[in-house]
Order: sequence, then C-alpha cells, then structure tokens
Amino acid sequence: MHEIKLATRRTTELLDITEVVQSKLASACQSNGICTIFCPHTTAGLLINECADPAVAHDIVSFLEELVPGNRAWTHAEGNSPAHVKAALVGNALQVAFEDRKLVLGTWQGIFFCEFDGPRQRRIWVQITSE
Amino acid sequence: MHEIKLATRRTTELLDITEVVQSKLASACQSNGICTIFCPHTTAGLLINECADPAVAHDIVSFLEELVPGNRAWTHAEGNSPAHVKAALVGNALQVAFEDRKLVLGTWQGIFFCEFDGPRQRRIWVQITSE
Amino acid sequence: MHEIKLATRRTTELLDITEVVQSKLASACQSNGICTIFCPHTTAGLLINECADPAVAHDIVSFLEELVPGNRAWTHAEGNSPAHVKAALVGNALQVAFEDRKLVLGTWQGIFFCEFDGPRQRRIWVQITSE
Repeated sequence: MHEIKLATRRTTELLDITEVVQSKLASACQSNGICTIFCPHTTAGLLINECADPAVAHDIVSFLEELVPGNRAWTHAEGNSPAHVKAALVGNALQVAFEDRKLVLGTWQGIFFCEFDGPRQRRIWVQITSE
Repeated sequence: MHEIKLATRRTTELLDITEVVQSKLASACQSNGICTIFCPHTTAGLLINECADPAVAHDIVSFLEELVPGNRAWTHAEGNSPAHVKAALVGNALQVAFEDRKLVLGTWQGIFFCEFDGPRQRRIWVQITSE
Repeated sequence: MHEIKLATRRTTELLDITEVVQSKLASACQSNGICTIFCPHTTAGLLINECADPAVAHDIVSFLEELVPGNRAWTHAEGNSPAHVKAALVGNALQVAFEDRKLVLGTWQGIFFCEFDGPRQRRIWVQITSE
C-alpha cells in the first residue's frame, strides 16, 4: 500500500490528485488491474468529477457548503459536524482501473481529494490489485 | 475491460442496466470475483437501489432535481453544474460480487445508470477481478 | 463470501460494525488484500466515518432526516421512499484494505451500517480479495 501526503490550504477545497495517484502506478509491479484510493480521514473525502474547468469543483464545494450549514444545532462538540456529513455524502474511497500502468479515466475526469475541515496535513492510501 | 454503450432518452433518468452488466459476466473466464462498474462521464453516475417498483427510481430522481436546483448562481458556464453535483453525490463506480458468473445482488436490487444531463450516447466500463 | 446478520433497533440508526467485519478477516486464508463490504438492502447503506464520538453518527443521521423529509409528495406507495433516497446518497458498498488480516482504517474511522427503514433483520456480505 502506498501513502501519499497532501497539504490542503483552505477550510474547504477540492484538490486534483490525479497526477500524484498516477505516479504511484508508474513503479507498480502490476501493469493491469484496479487501483483503490482510500481517505483515512473522517472530515475529508474523495470524488471523481470534471477537472478541465475549475468552476465545476468550485460549484460542487459551494453547493455542499450551502447544503450542510455550520449554524445548525449539531450535537458533536468539536464544531466540524458539517465536515463529517459532507464526507459521508461524497464517500471516502474510489476504484479506478489501470492498463499498462495508466489510470483509465473518462476524457474530463480527474480524481479529487475533498477537504472539508482544513487546512491540514492529510494523507491518502493507494492499493494496487492486479486483474 | 468491457465497454457497454448506452443511449439515454431524457435529461434526467435512472436506467436499469443489471441485465447488460450480467451479460458481460456470462463470457468471463473468471467464475467468482468482484465486478467493478465505472462511469467515465462527469454528469452521470451509478447507483444500486430497488428495481422492482419504478416509482422508487422516479422518487430518487425527483428528489435530486429539487435538491440541486438549476436556477442557483452556478459559476461553471456550461449550465450543467447541477448534473455535476448530482454525479458527485451518487458516485461514479460500483462493486458487485459474482459467483458462478452471476451477479450477487439483494432481492430487490438493480444496478442503475444515472443520467443527469441527457439525452446522450453514454458508455460504462466493466472490469472483472477474480476472487 | 461471508454473510453477517444484523438486528437493527430503530427506524434510523448508524450501527458500528467494524469489529464484526474484522472478525471475518481473522479466519481468512488471505493475509493482505481488499475487503469489499456490500449491503444487499435498498433502504439501508454503508459508510465510514468517526466512531470515537457517537455524536458524529447522531449528527449524520439527523441531518439526513431533515434533508429527506417524510412528508414530501413521494410516488412509491410503500411510504419508505426517504429511506431509498438516503441509501442512494450514502451508497451500499465499501472497500477497505487489510494487512496481516487487520482492516487498515484511519485513527478515528469506523464502519457503519446505516439503517433507514428499521427496525429489521438485516445482513451484509463481506468479500475478501487478495492483493
């Protein structure tokens, strides 16, 4: 299992991690299979969506900000319940196939780390399973 | 990896693709394992839910329509930000186990392709991993 | 494939199933790989989030209760459309890596069965794939 360290810079942001995930495949002993990307944090998540126009990531983030308001009567005392809820909605793991050590993604797709309670030092785990 | 082509007929719809995914397993060399179904589009997704009563798919779609309104101040200029957001919420990949080349699903479960920006020609990818 | 039986006690609740999933790995013939956890129900789901403070699970559940109201004009006649929608939002399958027959989770992470239409007898399926 490969660990990738990430530093987020804002409270909430979508960070394109496609290239750094791809870099872990370059040295893999398997050439074809499935790559599982796992976020071990509970106030962050992972999703795949359009990476060509940054406005898409901006719209996803701003929609989630509105959907899960900070000023609701949350019971968890740390004040970051909205971040936990957003993480539950987007999910914390992804599977992407690879062929010839290259991620097989759609034309407009990128892999995003979703920071919902930053800025922080974060990490993700990449597990490579052969076909 | 198998590619399945789909033609959607409406702007938003849930299309039951259980049978077409099952058909790709029939000719697989593996008899037991995990089937990964991947949507390479950024305005469509995949989910598993009840396929017995079409009213369930209708309710899921109509709820998402209300949840993610078209008339919000979106920044992405193409006008399909709601479709990107809905895709981010439902997710773009599924894993289903198979035994004896048959998908192992719950009694009421079907696999749905979620069109959020149609009608369009779409495709999904099916990767078969042995146990 | 391993089956785990669960009895939920409320209409809506998050049940920490980390230990029972871990117990299925203890006797596995594979020592390293990916564990796929699958919910075969259409009014329940699975998610990974904080298990240290039960207030987090409470906040996730109560947010979803508000987000998907019972008194909307649902078309599915069984009255449990909100449960189907919540299941579609959180998802019905998870992948977690394991090493030396131990689930590899983040410090605060637990695996939750999400009951949205209980109380009921439920079951989940655990599939173990070697690396």
